[in-house]
Amino acid sequence: MNVRGFQKVWLTRCLTVAVVAAVGGATAWHALGYGGDERLADRAAIAAVLNAQQTAWNRGDVEAFMEGYWRSPELSFSGSGGITRGFDGVRERYKTRYADRAAMGHLDFSELEFRFLGPNAAMVLGHWHLKREIGDVGGVFTLVWQKFPEGWKIIHDHTSLVPAP
Amino acid sequence: MNVRGFQKVWLTRCLTVAVVAAVGGATAWHALGYGGDERLADRAAIAAVLNAQQTAWNRGDVEAFMEGYWRSPELSFSGSGGITRGFDGVRERYKTRYADRAAMGHLDFSELEFRFLGPNAAMVLGHWHLKREIGDVGGVFTLVWQKFPEGWKIIHDHTSLVPAP
Repeated sequence: MNVRGFQKVWLTRCLTVAVVAAVGGATAWHALGYGGDERLADRAAIAAVLNAQQTAWNRGDVEAFMEGYWRSPELSFSGSGGITRGFDGVRERYKTRYADRAAMGHLDFSELEFRFLGPNAAMVLGHWHLKREIGDVGGVFTLVWQKFPEGWKIIHDHTSLVPAP
Repeated sequence: MNVRGFQKVWLTRCLTVAVVAAVGGATAWHALGYGGDERLADRAAIAAVLNAQQTAWNRGDVEAFMEGYWRSPELSFSGSGGITRGFDGVRERYKTRYADRAAMGHLDFSELEFRFLGPNAAMVLGHWHLKREIGDVGGVFTLVWQKFPEGWKIIHDHTSLVPAP
């Protein structure tokens, strides 16, 4: 092999390394959460989960409503009752507090605000309202989300009742 | 330059690119939040901010207490009063609700739980308690943190009063 031959071989190797580095860099950049398009998709995915929760609640299906939550003992729910632990605990809390359709009423989420906290994490602030014949209730929530292979799930919910003015 | 000479030059260039790629990769890995030591440091840094908040509160210094919060119009505070907006709004809320030392009492944070959500984000759950001659109050909080060049700051606070049992 002559000088030109060696030059070509090393040039090819060097280019390969550079391409691998560039792809790696772009992947990391994207993973760090700066990929605009992905954030739009993530926002839509989270909004879809919340929509599904509303729909489930409004047909009285707490099991389907719970699909929005992380099915883990580490799921947590904070509120005026303190901290409720685990998927089963949170489901139980809903089933106890909203034992029938009259108590469940018609749920509406509104004024959602999204903040992405990293590649696989987000916070959503919003308002909730239950229209009920036994009396409306509503307030505000803070939802912390994590993106799992199976999609975005609520890993922590902090909900407050805001008394009507 | 002979074959060996070219080989050396390209080997050097290639090694340089490889080292840059490796350092870049390690930085991204670390930035993605998988650096164990950094998480320990982050945890200590957040705990230090909360300690400083308690100390400031307990000497009646709301301005210094507020140092733990993100000094931004985007700071938010959720609770039974709805959503309070902006650094100035949150400070005003504290100054109105806790107008004097008797109302402020002695603050204790306890049972802190840390969850890192990405390279620059964390969630901290915990309990707060105000020991006061006019009557103790306490409850639970969810703090969402972001790491800025100047350090970890609370970007969202959701606090609930939990009535004593």
